[in-house]
Amino acid sequence: MIRLAIDAMGGDYAPAEIVAGAIQGARELDVAVSLVGNPEVVRRQLQDVITSDLSLEVVLAQDVIHMDQDPAQAVRISPDASINVACRLVLEGRADGVLTMGHTGAGMIAALFNFGRIPGIDRPAVIVPFLGIRRDLYLIDVGANADVRPVHLLQFALMGSAYARYAGGIVHPRVGLLSNGSEANKGNKVGKEAYALLAGAVGLDFIGNVEPHTLASNDVNVVVSDGFAGNVLLKATEGMVANLLAQFEYLLPQMPPDSVELVKSHLEKLRARYHYASYGAATLLGVQHPMFIGHGRSKARAVRNGMATAVRMIAGDVIGNIQKWA
Amino acid sequence: MIRLAIDAMGGDYAPAEIVAGAIQGARELDVAVSLVGNPEVVRRQLQDVITSDLSLEVVLAQDVIHMDQDPAQAVRISPDASINVACRLVLEGRADGVLTMGHTGAGMIAALFNFGRIPGIDRPAVIVPFLGIRRDLYLIDVGANADVRPVHLLQFALMGSAYARYAGGIVHPRVGLLSNGSEANKGNKVGKEAYALLAGAVGLDFIGNVEPHTLASNDVNVVVSDGFAGNVLLKATEGMVANLLAQFEYLLPQMPPDSVELVKSHLEKLRARYHYASYGAATLLGVQHPMFIGHGRSKARAVRNGMATAVRMIAGDVIGNIQKWA
Repeated sequence: MIRLAIDAMGGDYAPAEIVAGAIQGARELDVAVSLVGNPEVVRRQLQDVITSDLSLEVVLAQDVIHMDQDPAQAVRISPDASINVACRLVLEGRADGVLTMGHTGAGMIAALFNFGRIPGIDRPAVIVPFLGIRRDLYLIDVGANADVRPVHLLQFALMGSAYARYAGGIVHPRVGLLSNGSEANKGNKVGKEAYALLAGAVGLDFIGNVEPHTLASNDVNVVVSDGFAGNVLLKATEGMVANLLAQFEYLLPQMPPDSVELVKSHLEKLRARYHYASYGAATLLGVQHPMFIGHGRSKARAVRNGMATAVRMIAGDVIGNIQKWA
Repeated sequence: MIRLAIDAMGGDYAPAEIVAGAIQGARELDVAVSLVGNPEVVRRQLQDVITSDLSLEVVLAQDVIHMDQDPAQAVRISPDASINVACRLVLEGRADGVLTMGHTGAGMIAALFNFGRIPGIDRPAVIVPFLGIRRDLYLIDVGANADVRPVHLLQFALMGSAYARYAGGIVHPRVGLLSNGSEANKGNKVGKEAYALLAGAVGLDFIGNVEPHTLASNDVNVVVSDGFAGNVLLKATEGMVANLLAQFEYLLPQMPPDSVELVKSHLEKLRARYHYASYGAATLLGVQHPMFIGHGRSKARAVRNGMATAVRMIAGDVIGNIQKWA
């Protein structure tokens, strides 16, 4: 049984929504959970819930890292912060991975600090599924590395390919480089040099440059980017979905009642599909143990789905498969 | 009366759609037009149209630059290509600006080659309105410069601000820097250095970093970016709109007939608003005369709207206003 160490204190809706999501995930996904935080606070959330059928433990963490702290400093000076305690559970073999909805930077730094990089990987990167667009599409990096060198993009490509295969079940993942044109000579300086590295990489099915507006129809599975442009792509997508769905809601008052329900349910379905809560957590690739980081705004559904994302990655032994060639 | 030199031979639907759009624009916008290309071919398009009420001339160009040519070389070795002849009309005072739906790179290089840069501007950049999101929002650069230095972003900001003011009628344009976070310390290396330059620039209302998903609700008017991330933002937006509207079309067969018409017309309205044809042409800023470049796929409506974009920029004397401080 996979056991997740969940940072019960991290996130805007902690601990209530974190604990509620963790219980839901534990039950639906058949996962064991260690809730890390202030035991009194966490147990208060559990008191009216039947958890006797679950493998659930509460682990003491004396401290919490807050959003306004410098993450690099906070992780170092607060060894008993919930995120650090959660990481130690993994190092001690008492959990298989960490899920946090707390400070994103703190989650990344805690993973680097406690787990360390996989030898051969210079820079850990964040991968997310691009579920709204296609169920078999992933984007790496979406924010860990605003500046990269070409070799980092190669490492992202290899890690992303391993993730798509072993966590995503895509037998032969096709990898593309995010660019401003489909031709090989398009892209910025770093991208053009990375193109040559990706084209020459053994074990990588590199299909060339891909442009953002072709992702729905393209057959690419892993889109590789620096964390700046990748973040722009992800947020532009989220923004446009919210924007367009809002513009459809204006229609509702003008519609006959039997259409209103149809359109409303369609809007809800689309909103849910494109919403980050549908996958719940981004995965940090390149560190030696699994770290999953969700939005600070996560509610129970996002926590539950983040656990599902975590389970797929851990069950697929993505890290072991990266370590084989890294 | 403003006179536009229009490359009648450039674009996938040239000359028919270019000429049709030019006539429509000439009539509706009260603009004089010089159609540049093969006179026989162009006149064939004009033979069944009444143009006696228009200020329309056909100007001979012996040559055309094709999509598969290297633009830098083609512009230099083909002085009589339609794009070069159109530029010369401007240099000779016989037109106020050039509009082309042909090879984008050739349009940019022809402008640099024939018009030259504005002294003080190191890199011309491409600005477009972000009409689908808000009517008072512009994005610069969307593709001319995949790699930039911080000072280039400052120049884009100043040019974009002048454009928003003098072509867009925004009295006090607010300028933001595209970033992966709203805080001042977010962004890539170039962006962080540019932040300091923009914050210190006289005559610039710099509001800080802006993230893509906030553009609809943000009060920013000009979003400044390198041409790589700007292109990603633009294409991601276009892609998501196509994607989501297609997903609404699936609903139509399930709807009662009176709702179908309503939803269909709403889909058409949204599609039109977010479509590049609604502005028709991007504007190249930083060269000494006006150059407007549309999509190769442009049809008559895009040509007509590109002319409107051109008229606003020329009438506002954006270049004169940039020259004042550049």
